[in-house]
Amino acid sequence: MISDLNEVFSTNAKHMKKSVIRELLKLTRRPEVISFAGGLPDPAAFPVEEVAEITAYVLRTQGATALQYGPTEGDPKLKEELIAHHEREDGTQLRPENILITVASQQGLDLTAKVFIDRGDKVIVGLPTYVGGLGAFTSYGADMIGIELDDDGMRMDLLEAELERLRKKRQKPKFIYVVPDFQNPAGITMSEARRLKLIELAHKYDVLIIEDSPYKELRFEGETQRSIFALDGTGHVIGLHTFSKILFPGMRLGWIIGDEAVIQKIVIAKQATDLCTPPFNQAIIAEFASRGLLTKVIENVKGIYREKREVMLKALDEYMPDLPGLSWTRPEGGLFLWVRLPDSIDAEQLFYEAIEQDVAFVVGSAFHCDGGGQHAMRLNFSYPTLDSIVEGVKRLAGVIEKHKTVVKNGKKTPISP
Amino acid sequence: MISDLNEVFSTNAKHMKKSVIRELLKLTRRPEVISFAGGLPDPAAFPVEEVAEITAYVLRTQGATALQYGPTEGDPKLKEELIAHHEREDGTQLRPENILITVASQQGLDLTAKVFIDRGDKVIVGLPTYVGGLGAFTSYGADMIGIELDDDGMRMDLLEAELERLRKKRQKPKFIYVVPDFQNPAGITMSEARRLKLIELAHKYDVLIIEDSPYKELRFEGETQRSIFALDGTGHVIGLHTFSKILFPGMRLGWIIGDEAVIQKIVIAKQATDLCTPPFNQAIIAEFASRGLLTKVIENVKGIYREKREVMLKALDEYMPDLPGLSWTRPEGGLFLWVRLPDSIDAEQLFYEAIEQDVAFVVGSAFHCDGGGQHAMRLNFSYPTLDSIVEGVKRLAGVIEKHKTVVKNGKKTPISP
Repeated sequence: MISDLNEVFSTNAKHMKKSVIRELLKLTRRPEVISFAGGLPDPAAFPVEEVAEITAYVLRTQGATALQYGPTEGDPKLKEELIAHHEREDGTQLRPENILITVASQQGLDLTAKVFIDRGDKVIVGLPTYVGGLGAFTSYGADMIGIELDDDGMRMDLLEAELERLRKKRQKPKFIYVVPDFQNPAGITMSEARRLKLIELAHKYDVLIIEDSPYKELRFEGETQRSIFALDGTGHVIGLHTFSKILFPGMRLGWIIGDEAVIQKIVIAKQATDLCTPPFNQAIIAEFASRGLLTKVIENVKGIYREKREVMLKALDEYMPDLPGLSWTRPEGGLFLWVRLPDSIDAEQLFYEAIEQDVAFVVGSAFHCDGGGQHAMRLNFSYPTLDSIVEGVKRLAGVIEKHKTVVKNGKKTPISP
Repeated sequence: MISDLNEVFSTNAKHMKKSVIRELLKLTRRPEVISFAGGLPDPAAFPVEEVAEITAYVLRTQGATALQYGPTEGDPKLKEELIAHHEREDGTQLRPENILITVASQQGLDLTAKVFIDRGDKVIVGLPTYVGGLGAFTSYGADMIGIELDDDGMRMDLLEAELERLRKKRQKPKFIYVVPDFQNPAGITMSEARRLKLIELAHKYDVLIIEDSPYKELRFEGETQRSIFALDGTGHVIGLHTFSKILFPGMRLGWIIGDEAVIQKIVIAKQATDLCTPPFNQAIIAEFASRGLLTKVIENVKGIYREKREVMLKALDEYMPDLPGLSWTRPEGGLFLWVRLPDSIDAEQLFYEAIEQDVAFVVGSAFHCDGGGQHAMRLNFSYPTLDSIVEGVKRLAGVIEKHKTVVKNGKKTPISP
């Protein structure tokens, strides 16, 4: 071994640390723990038999190409299916040149970061925002600026003030990163007024928008919002999409949509990164979509998650103690909701207490680039069973209940587990 | 769209250019062109029926996990199969902590570059070397230093002189990148003496070795060389491997082996890059290997490529003109051989003449970080059929034949096609 391994790592790698969250999550692996911590889709919704049948068909009819190298840009047949999907979803008009197939949307985040971020570059994100976005941007040395969310999404007054502050310093962020639909972690959806304002600000301050959209198709109620990509229509927005939540994550398939010039640059970056996304997987999903099964599965998934969300909200309403400062979001779709805790309750402390009672969540600080989020947590409702949701919420309510006196007395002393 | 897209790209992205080679290769797509240009495996060797049967089995028995997210480190069952594979191949002893499953070995190159290279860092590569290695290192801004190869692989006298020269300037390369077995592009295998000398120099100058090994298992004749990884045994070497050439590339599966501390860092980088390699694909190949089919397929592939190499060498011997300075390598395995042209023949000029005659190759300069290789070309023998190999070599010989008088007269004027 060389004398000092840490010395030879790149500057970005030296800043890569083991995720504290991942270490915490290891504590949740005991089978008796009911976990609201993960972000896993429900395997009961996986169309296993259809995938088996289609894979056999693909291998029988196109085995030699499905198992061969493919174009970096992606399978043309899958691109056609995605063009139809976007047209159907919100009327977005795309050409094949506007699409790059990726190893799910985490690679979309990575490649976007790779082509835009130099160490020290500013990037604007939500407070809170998706932890995998923070991870991708950090891995290229981005300097993140957080903008608070309210129930309508990212606050545009704060964003405008920040962009103006930067402009006075002759600085410009590389992009504004948003998850506008049923946001991970907060479950919040950005209103159309906010979307339009965001586009206006992005044009005014000449900054790109990254619209990360893994859950948009999973709306249980309320009115579908048009994507920021579609509302803009000028190529100012880069859209990140994935099959992970609407179908399943195990084939790692996603796609980026954007202006042709942006896509061309990202294609060059991808060529050096992995040559191409698995052609085998692309051929299977292209066939799956061409048989109209994608829309069918999405309907099924929505039904399952709608019920789970109902059960979780009902259990929260029923079992959570009546505490000032304790509230949660009521997402109209997606996989997550967000619980705000009274200022006297530290979410990390609560995590250890909850684990003692065999229930888990993710602490809010994981989703904050500014060290905030200590008094919040993310709950996932897509993975646990209906019974587990009720039982898990009961346990969690019990743990929070113990803080009741402390909260009422206004004391901040944490209660030991 | 923003006002100046090129302005907002990262420094590394600004340096990413469309590959000239890829543009040249587009000319080879006409069906009448016999292409020795690609690096594709022969689809006749793909075990399509076995994959179909195994995929059905995997979905039936473990569909819920195969289509779910998996660990970033890789499928434990596949790791066990790889540990057995390395033990079988050259007695390498590995533990699961020494392995990370990747999206084929191009991702191995990308992640290795990501964790080691800062813009301007020195990296040592062969002259020639694998073009995808050059692409990955360039994408992080590496400053490449080329070391010539002879018939025994990278020249250790030149390497030592370079390392000494750098040391005097208080510089140290981040790593030495080698493809020791049936090298792409030259088809050359590094002798054991060279391997041992390389290890000695790497230790003396405290520099890591990256051993890229996609073809090692595909030896047709001669004695198998132990891997540099195994010969070293101290964790000084990082090994990159892939199923792309020994099985098929369409599932994009490869793996990195290395010291646990190196693997841990690369795992963190991979987490931010794509979360995990497709669990579906990993489950299929783990099952495939556990049934002993991997060794069976490798035997079959070796037989097919051995014959193709024989036919190409025989055709070259028979049809190539007798020109001073015209020679080619006789690889003991792999997919490629390397033709050295007389100094009077420019390979790029020859490429256009060859395309006119419906035969294609890759120009040597693609594999050189120093602008060299103008008088060399790479020929692939794995993909074209036996008949095409003979016909293609005849056509290529005819194109070179036209240069005969010029060469003999010592003139350097290129002949127009």
